[in-house]
Amino acid sequence: MQVAVLAHEKFPERAKTAVGVLRYADYDVTAVLDRDRAGGRVNEYLPGVPDAPIVEGMEDVENADALLIGIAPIGGGFDESWREDVENALSRGCDVISGLHYFLSEDEEFVSLAAENDCELWDVRKPDEDLTVSQGIAKDVDAEVVLTVGTDCSVGKMTVSLELARAAQAQGVDAGFIPTGQTGIMIEGWGNPIDRVVSDFTAGAVEEMILEKGDEHDYLFVEGQGTIIHPAYSAVTCGILHGAMPDKLVLCHAAGREAIHGYEDFSIPPVDTYVDLYEGLAGPVHEAEVAAGALNTMEIADDGPARDAVSEYGSDLGVPATDPVRFDTEEVLEALL
Amino acid sequence: MQVAVLAHEKFPERAKTAVGVLRYADYDVTAVLDRDRAGGRVNEYLPGVPDAPIVEGMEDVENADALLIGIAPIGGGFDESWREDVENALSRGCDVISGLHYFLSEDEEFVSLAAENDCELWDVRKPDEDLTVSQGIAKDVDAEVVLTVGTDCSVGKMTVSLELARAAQAQGVDAGFIPTGQTGIMIEGWGNPIDRVVSDFTAGAVEEMILEKGDEHDYLFVEGQGTIIHPAYSAVTCGILHGAMPDKLVLCHAAGREAIHGYEDFSIPPVDTYVDLYEGLAGPVHEAEVAAGALNTMEIADDGPARDAVSEYGSDLGVPATDPVRFDTEEVLEALL
Repeated sequence: MQVAVLAHEKFPERAKTAVGVLRYADYDVTAVLDRDRAGGRVNEYLPGVPDAPIVEGMEDVENADALLIGIAPIGGGFDESWREDVENALSRGCDVISGLHYFLSEDEEFVSLAAENDCELWDVRKPDEDLTVSQGIAKDVDAEVVLTVGTDCSVGKMTVSLELARAAQAQGVDAGFIPTGQTGIMIEGWGNPIDRVVSDFTAGAVEEMILEKGDEHDYLFVEGQGTIIHPAYSAVTCGILHGAMPDKLVLCHAAGREAIHGYEDFSIPPVDTYVDLYEGLAGPVHEAEVAAGALNTMEIADDGPARDAVSEYGSDLGVPATDPVRFDTEEVLEALL
Repeated sequence: MQVAVLAHEKFPERAKTAVGVLRYADYDVTAVLDRDRAGGRVNEYLPGVPDAPIVEGMEDVENADALLIGIAPIGGGFDESWREDVENALSRGCDVISGLHYFLSEDEEFVSLAAENDCELWDVRKPDEDLTVSQGIAKDVDAEVVLTVGTDCSVGKMTVSLELARAAQAQGVDAGFIPTGQTGIMIEGWGNPIDRVVSDFTAGAVEEMILEKGDEHDYLFVEGQGTIIHPAYSAVTCGILHGAMPDKLVLCHAAGREAIHGYEDFSIPPVDTYVDLYEGLAGPVHEAEVAAGALNTMEIADDGPARDAVSEYGSDLGVPATDPVRFDTEEVLEALL
């Protein structure tokens, strides 16, 4: 499927959905829409993924079967400056894939344009109607469950889960990936958007996925969300921890991050505070240990200092650590598998 | 307003909404519907509240302006055996008040009956459309915030919050109550049903209420939900803890409870585990301390052993404790105000 990815004014640093899709999905990305960087190429900003032109808007895209909204602002609203691109896409028969809290399938104009042009509006973040409360039985599946947890939002939990699952598969290990957020769901084509379910069903929506896949694989890598000390999103983190009932945790952090992203009044405590909280909170439901660390070193230009940062992070944690995008995952996988 | 309260087969032990409404709301309860105890009186089972007859069904109720669903089964479904009572109520022009996850206002038959008879279907658990993510600013209100937290569901957190708020008011203290669940909302006539909001908005829905009332009172008593180690509902608990940003916590427990209610595989750890988790989790967002304990001694018949249980609970916690329904609240309030 040929896909155009909308990432206006945010590509690539603040466009984690766009980057995730470019890096991991099977789509053929034919263009990235970013009016601030129009005329450039994806690989100028993001090496190591299939290249594509960066364009001003949908009218400059030649081939596409779908437009995918590749940015997710705080609050998940729809930016009216994107309306023209969505209109253009629907008018020429492209589907539109969105992970916003604002549902395109409830926007009257988009609904009627989609009907006229026989295309689909896929709101990835719209949860199934039949979700319910957790039964507390995720611990009973055959697979060992590995959950990524974080010191903050946007530190790379999805990326770490995907990289580790793929590295495990490359070793011949039967490993599955459980998506819990819009980007993971777009990449995999299925999954429950945990941050959008009714709060009482948070753990239940994760449990349902673990039960569905847990006897098919030897290992499940579950995408974590947020952080347990997030002033706004900790509920989601806590529900995933108890719903997934992981055996092992990978603590993810971004090098140099000192305060909660977007909530700068709240500083990030030492890593052992997180270890105590995640393990302490998991324990009474299902014992889990922080068995590895993952450090996002994107902000560190050179490999030498990045390696030093990873090794310092690992020794702070007292467990093997890596940046799985940049360095190898051997030691970390050994601790997890 | 004259109200009939539906509590079939569950009054009073497993009908916490019915009991809460009888004990704290300003409604004139004219009957309780419980087909298992029809012919009895409320006071036979629940002393200390206004008395009323217990009847078989709505057809035996003489006077009522509304029927209130006073039970909340796990999962929050609608029991079809109640349909006749709701039909009867609507047919005679009574409003129906419900805190179920199943919305009566989305049931076609009820909607058309309500329209025909000009009555209202109030789904207390249906959240406002305009809720959003927390801004992380509940800490900035003038009021001191006291949150009840629990070792389990159904240990009496709402009751404790209401009793302490009333006892504080009786001392001349300007104290408000923040309802977070269906019963509290029914009693107060306003509030956000936190277990029913989108999980990303859990903290935000609490924060909104704190901001609304926080400069009107000197103290706010916030109704907690669930427990931080609940296999299904911990997300709600965690979101309330971070959204309310309490200064002080009251740890609520039910005497003799050894496992999580309805999830008997999960045992209740020692109280200091809870103290560490609640304080540890609150700390990085806003410092809070467990300053008092509340023990629900409903299952202990005699006052002597109940007093002993309270005093043991207090000494385990190392802070003043009481059962605010049964004993005085002086010492506990001193620790909180």
